Order: sequence, then structure tokens, then C-alpha cells
Amino acid sequence: MEPFLKEFSARVGAWLETATTESDVVVSTRIRLARNVEGYPFVGRMRETQAAELADRLREGILGAGFGKDFRYISLRESSRVCRDLLLERHLISRELAGGKLDRGVAFSEPETVGLMVNEEDHLRIQVLLPGFALDEAWSRISAIDRALESRIDFAHRDDFGYLTACPTNIGTGMRVSVMVHLPALGLVEREMKKVFNAAAKTNLAMRGLHGEGTRATGDFYQISNQVTLGRSEESLLSDLGRILPHVLTFERRVREELTKESRAMLEDRIWRSYGLLRNARSISTDEAITSLSAVRLGAYLGLLTDVQPSTLNRLLVLVQPGHLQAKVGRELGPPERDVERAALLRDSFGAGAPPERA
Amino acid sequence: MEPFLKEFSARVGAWLETATTESDVVVSTRIRLARNVEGYPFVGRMRETQAAELADRLREGILGAGFGKDFRYISLRESSRVCRDLLLERHLISRELAGGKLDRGVAFSEPETVGLMVNEEDHLRIQVLLPGFALDEAWSRISAIDRALESRIDFAHRDDFGYLTACPTNIGTGMRVSVMVHLPALGLVEREMKKVFNAAAKTNLAMRGLHGEGTRATGDFYQISNQVTLGRSEESLLSDLGRILPHVLTFERRVREELTKESRAMLEDRIWRSYGLLRNARSISTDEAITSLSAVRLGAYLGLLTDVQPSTLNRLLVLVQPGHLQAKVGRELGPPERDVERAALLRDSFGAGAPPERA
Repeated sequence: MEPFLKEFSARVGAWLETATTESDVVVSTRIRLARNVEGYPFVGRMRETQAAELADRLREGILGAGFGKDFRYISLRESSRVCRDLLLERHLISRELAGGKLDRGVAFSEPETVGLMVNEEDHLRIQVLLPGFALDEAWSRISAIDRALESRIDFAHRDDFGYLTACPTNIGTGMRVSVMVHLPALGLVEREMKKVFNAAAKTNLAMRGLHGEGTRATGDFYQISNQVTLGRSEESLLSDLGRILPHVLTFERRVREELTKESRAMLEDRIWRSYGLLRNARSISTDEAITSLSAVRLGAYLGLLTDVQPSTLNRLLVLVQPGHLQAKVGRELGPPERDVERAALLRDSFGAGAPPERA
Repeated sequence: MEPFLKEFSARVGAWLETATTESDVVVSTRIRLARNVEGYPFVGRMRETQAAELADRLREGILGAGFGKDFRYISLRESSRVCRDLLLERHLISRELAGGKLDRGVAFSEPETVGLMVNEEDHLRIQVLLPGFALDEAWSRISAIDRALESRIDFAHRDDFGYLTACPTNIGTGMRVSVMVHLPALGLVEREMKKVFNAAAKTNLAMRGLHGEGTRATGDFYQISNQVTLGRSEESLLSDLGRILPHVLTFERRVREELTKESRAMLEDRIWRSYGLLRNARSISTDEAITSLSAVRLGAYLGLLTDVQPSTLNRLLVLVQPGHLQAKVGRELGPPERDVERAALLRDSFGAGAPPERA
């Protein structure tokens, strides 16, 4: 396990901050652009030597583009499994990049708002990930990065198609816009949640739970993103999400208010039980932890739990995951050991004191 | 609702004390004697006027027997439903007495270790209920009461049968001996629990859970009692239970020790989760409360939870029940209201502070 992982696992990306006025519902905003380099086959058809050569070129291109000294590049070829899990849990790399075989890596800024994957499905995938609902800022930042790189790297582009990508669905802008929303109140009222699923489907937006589209997400954290990009401009992709999201936000907030008035006892019970669970369990799975953190997050934003900070809860959504727990402890752990470590982390985080003496 | 119920509901019987060395497993010991009065038909065949006359006679007989000034008689004919529930939950009356139609009542001592039901299935049912495992003391106390009453009341008795009772299974001694045991460790290991069920069946002892014989009891609180009384002497009935109970006790303690060593993480997790639930829930059913109290009781006796007193837990087993909650509040409550009151009582009892402000 890489020595830097321990320190690295103790912090999380700035995209988990909770400073914006929409943070009660919108956790984060993400834009990614898919780019490929002229003169190289797509990743799926590259030989190892070509991949290594391109990875070197891209790493140098990125680190030399003047994005600041806090940029770091991690090669995934020799990285440990815990390192890859950690990067995945921080949303810095994809499952595809983690599981790849060729020379590949990720560059990212210190606050982790900018990330660049090398030799994923495309040669380069640029990501900007910001806290709250921030489409405009994300767009202006990713455009600047894209332009800075384009002045140094020859991206594959045709006037009639736009940017060329490995998968035809990405051709054109190569852009995907997505927003992570927390919909715990809608999650309690199935009928209302269905309306949101339907609205998203009608506007060509995908709504993904943990187990794919249209399924209930663990902790009611959903990714809403654009589906079709071919033949669309960047502006129209942004405006699709920009139009629907305020409705989702208003809808979730309205149901929260209704529940507070009409089902207050049920709501308080659910929230306090979750809080009690997080402060007392001696062993807890990732799913149960996230479901409980979700309820406590709702309680914090409704003012029912006054001594819990939403930022703590956002951090924990990442810190309770297996890679982070193993990096914290400094060694690989089996699932039962992780469940015990996770419970200890949660008790510490909520000031529930140290674990009891062991026999 | 009777004015005395509020004060009455705040305390519990002395049989819930936890001073004996067997209190970790044996909650209480109970002996009851069934007696009928010469010259009156059995209760099932009595007219209303006869029942009223007999109830008067027995009340006077009991209160005048010199058992002490702290004896109280409650007539159930005009008592409220909450009052009857309360007496039932305190083990002072049976379901049969609570639901009767004729003039009937119960006399009991202030610490509630002695109780006498009038016009239940038999004219008189005498009960002694003591904390812990106390067969000898219970027997000597109930014998003294029986003798004192017999000197004033003409009990139906035949030299060949013994005491006559309404139900043939009680003829002879009219005695039932039972012990309430808490078997939470055995409850966690089904295979071991089955051995106890089998051992009880082989020695003609009945083992009753909440839902009848041989079923899993809520919170793993079981009543072990003698089955057959006809043709048996008091001494042999006592010795049946006196012989088997130490084995049950040893068995439960051994499994507790094994679990502490071999499944400590699971055990701690279960206990702390229950504790967290009791301290945080805003609404909780009787069953869930008792199941959680059971786990916390185990934790207290294993020294895993050091700031919880077993006596508090025993008291709560009674205080969380519907009659007690309604008497405490001073009015009838529907089930959802009771669940909220129960949760509030539990939070208060475990020092988890007052409920949050209501909107």
C-alpha cells in the first residue's frame, strides 16, 4: 500500500463542501469532456507501447499546462487495489479506469475539483466537480482547461462531427453534465418519487441510483445527467439540466416541508433512530451507514438535529467506504473488519466516544 | 380513570428488584394456590348475587387476617380499563380476572409480593411473587398466608382429593410454581435454546413464551412452570423446578460467556444498537422496546454497558406497557400516541434528555 494513502484518506474533495444555498438538495455538479489525441488509435485498439507513450505525453501535457503546482499525477499501473478503490470512492477515477490493463493514470488538483483521466475509454477525460448546483462555474472552468490543453495537444476533431470519441454516443461535444442530488423526502413517498423519474425520462435525462437507472438509490443519492449528446451543443445540454433541476429541488423541499408538518413523529423517529445507530453500532455495512447518514443529513437540514454539521455528513459519505477505511488503517481488511472500523469511525465522528475496552 | 392510578403507575412491585445472585438469569419466582369456599358453587356456575356476597366475605376475610395495614383491595367491577391493564401488567391479576363479569377483585400488599384474586376461575387464588430464585421463601410465605386464611375461611377440601378446584388439573394442591427467566444468550443460539425446551418437556415443566408454549418469547423472557399437579405433593412440585432451574441458569451463563469470547463484536454491536435505539427512538412499540431492553439487560450483566442499572431495566419492562403509559399520562391513548409516550419514557430513563422542541 502506498505510504501517501494514509494522509490522503483523511481528507476529501472540495466538492463535498456544503456552502451553497442549494446544498440541502444538490450535493455536487460535474461536467466531463471526452477527448482523444490525433495520431493514436482509440484506447480499446491501442498496443501497450502506444498506450505507455501516450500516457507519458498526456501526463507531461497536463502537468506542464500551468494549472498550478498542486496538480498530482497517479499512475494506476502499479497502484495498489486500495489506492484504486480510494480514487474511485473520491470520484476521481471511473470503474473502467480502475479495472484497466494498459498504462493509465489520473491527474488532479489538490482540492480535487479538477480531474483528468488518461487512457480510460477515451485518451483523456476531463472532469470538473464542484459543490452544490454550479453549472455555469463548472462550464467556465472546464472550458478554460479544455482550451489550455488544446493549445498543447492535438485533439481528434472533425468539422462535421465535432470531437471524435471511442463510443458514438459521446461524439460531438464529448460532454456529460451531471448533478448529484439528495432526495430523502421524495424517497419516503414513492408516489412522488415516481413523478421525478418520469419527468427526467421525458426530458432525456438519466436518473441513476446505485443499482442503475430508475432504481431506488442507497440513501436516496441520485445522479441526474444528460443522455444524448450527439447533434447537441454544449449550451443546450447545460440548459436541459439547468431547466429541470430547479423543479426537482423545489419538489424535494416541498415534500420535506409537508413531512415536517404532517408526519413529524415518523420523521423525527426515523432521523433519531439513524443518529442513534451511527453513534452506537459496533459493526455496520456501507449500505446501512449511507442509509443512516442520509436520514441524519435530512435531520440536519430540517433543523431537527442541531449538533450535526452537514459538511461532516458529506465527508462521511466518502470516508465510510472500503478503500478509505483500509487506507486509514494502513492495510487490507476483510468485510467484517471493515464493518467494525466503519462503526468506530462513525462513533468518533459523532462524538460518541472511544470504543469500549476489549477483553 | 381512577385518581390513584397516576401515582400507582410510577412504581413497580418488589418482585422486580435485582438483589439476588441469580438475578442475571432469574427475574422472579411465583407460587399460586387455588382455593374455593365451601357452600358456594364454582365461579363459572355462580349467580351474580352469590358472587357479590362471596366477594364481600373474602375481601373482609383477607383484610381482617392481619396481613398488615398495607393491604389494599381493588374491586374490578367498576374499575376502568386502564386500571385493569395496569394490574395485569404488574402480574397482580390474570387476563381471566380482568375480563370477568361478576363481582370480583384483587387484594395485594404494598410491595406487591402478595396478591389474592377473588372470583377468578376459583373463588380465591393466592399468589406470592418474589424477586430472583426464591422457591423456599415463596413457599414458606404462601403457606403462612394459606394457613391464616384457612383458620377464618372454610376451604373446599376432601381427604381423598385434596383441595377442590374448578378445573380438574388443579385439584389436589391447587398449586402452580413458576419462575420467570431471562435467556437472551440462549435466544441467540437456536440450537442451544431447543435443548432447554426439550429438557423442560421431559421433566413435565411448561416453558411459555409470550405466544404460548415452545415459542420464542419477546425479549427472551420465559415462564417455566409445573404442568401436572393432580396426585403430586407440594414438595415434589417444588423439587421439580428446584432441580431443573440451576441447569437452565448454568446453561444460559455458559452461553453468555462463550458469546463474550467468541462473538464479542456481534454481541457488542447488538447491545449498543439496542441501547442507541432506546435512547433515540421517537416512537417505539412494546415489542421492540422489550426486545431492546432485553439486549441492554444482557449488556448490563456482562459489564459491557456500565452506566445502566439492571433494576432500571426490570422496572422498564413493566413501565413501557400500555396500561402504565396511559396511567402515567392520565388518559386513554391510541397505539400511535402510546408509541410516542413509550419512546419519551425510555429516553428520560436513560438520561437521553428531553424530546426536541415541537413546532
